[in-house]
Amino acid sequence: MSQNLQTGSFIFRQLFEKTSSTYTYLIGCPETGVCALIDPVLETVDRDLQLVRELGLKLAYTVETHIHADHVTGALKLHALSDCQIAGAAMDNLPCRDVQLREGEAFAVGHVQIHPLFTPGHTDTHHAYLVDSPVHKMVFTGDCLLIDGCGRTDFQSGDAGVLYDSVHRKLYVLPDETLIYPGHDYENRLLTTIGQEKRRNPRLSAERERDSFIALMNSYDFPNPSKMDYAIPGNMQCGKCPDNLPKGMHRLCDVHDQG
Amino acid sequence: MSQNLQTGSFIFRQLFEKTSSTYTYLIGCPETGVCALIDPVLETVDRDLQLVRELGLKLAYTVETHIHADHVTGALKLHALSDCQIAGAAMDNLPCRDVQLREGEAFAVGHVQIHPLFTPGHTDTHHAYLVDSPVHKMVFTGDCLLIDGCGRTDFQSGDAGVLYDSVHRKLYVLPDETLIYPGHDYENRLLTTIGQEKRRNPRLSAERERDSFIALMNSYDFPNPSKMDYAIPGNMQCGKCPDNLPKGMHRLCDVHDQG
Repeated sequence: MSQNLQTGSFIFRQLFEKTSSTYTYLIGCPETGVCALIDPVLETVDRDLQLVRELGLKLAYTVETHIHADHVTGALKLHALSDCQIAGAAMDNLPCRDVQLREGEAFAVGHVQIHPLFTPGHTDTHHAYLVDSPVHKMVFTGDCLLIDGCGRTDFQSGDAGVLYDSVHRKLYVLPDETLIYPGHDYENRLLTTIGQEKRRNPRLSAERERDSFIALMNSYDFPNPSKMDYAIPGNMQCGKCPDNLPKGMHRLCDVHDQG
Repeated sequence: MSQNLQTGSFIFRQLFEKTSSTYTYLIGCPETGVCALIDPVLETVDRDLQLVRELGLKLAYTVETHIHADHVTGALKLHALSDCQIAGAAMDNLPCRDVQLREGEAFAVGHVQIHPLFTPGHTDTHHAYLVDSPVHKMVFTGDCLLIDGCGRTDFQSGDAGVLYDSVHRKLYVLPDETLIYPGHDYENRLLTTIGQEKRRNPRLSAERERDSFIALMNSYDFPNPSKMDYAIPGNMQCGKCPDNLPKGMHRLCDVHDQG
């Protein structure tokens, strides 16, 4: 971790993309006027850029928690439209990224310090992002820890035991009041805390043993995400529309439409 | 409202009293070393004082959101044990209070500014408390607005229409990201946001009309709270154990036991 852990005032917005129930987060620095978007979605790039403009900010970075299987990232399109840089985990080894993030190396968005936490399990390179605000620690957990749930561990590079360790070693060591902003919610809930998940997460309450969690996760038989076949190859290219994108979606990738 | 709305860094803890499912909140000023407890409970006075000591703080105030019917406040006992001042709404007209709070007059706990919001409906003198932290607005809603619910309006001085107006005029005008810390939760949930309640509160979603809410609240037939007969007279005396306190509870009021 960097020495300068705590961040002062910053601008914060939580945004929702309804077809994949994905949360995108805006973090802006009021002193320097720059901002980052965590997990932007292709479908909502225009809305995101409009918000950035309304707030009088400049989009400096997009940041990914992981290679998503359920939606195509808006990163490449945002880069094309706003000249922002594309950030994500160094261990993803994606040549399309401009900034390589690593646990232990704070990432600055203006004066806001973002701390990557290596939290594999949903995928093997998943990272959460911690921001230490003056009152609350805030952690953007991607698909590692969700409200009353967690990301699935049954495809891509998922591993239930590894996810359990990430939650217990990287997240449940944070103070109970830490705000958790998840990557998704399917019931219109917006946030939770470390204390709440330890108490009542049906899969990952503090009391559940590792073996019991692995058995539980292995007992599920989920269908594959509907967008998986094109989302993963698209996201391996930072959100380039892959050749197998369904008809009608290519217009989303066309930056010339956006003016 | 005071000119100096925003507060810098402060210390924050959320505490739970299990017999009445009540949340008590600690707000502390790291610069001056003083703190306040919002809605302390008689049963957990010792725990609260221990936490205050552990944090190296001095308890300066207790603050009530309303005259509770479901538990006896810890205010008077905390006052006896720590010499703190007892604060609450001026319109309660309680001679046992040291500090009288009013909407429009910020209340300072060290350098932390607490803004009372007059939010009647559960009782006719109920107040919520807003703290404008550097990143989030935080509102301590007492029994006005709960997670997926609200306080009952069928006894004491409750009024469903008045509660609806309080929620819509005082709370739903706050930004969606505003953190709501409720007075109770019965399912181990810890917090919500203005945006979440507008979206999914089954009684008070943003779309529900006032008449529909009144009809819904009037359709409920709740039993009276089990502690009501002694909690209300006790709380009208800032937490003095009333004569009709059940046998076995008087020891809770005995400050000499505490050393």
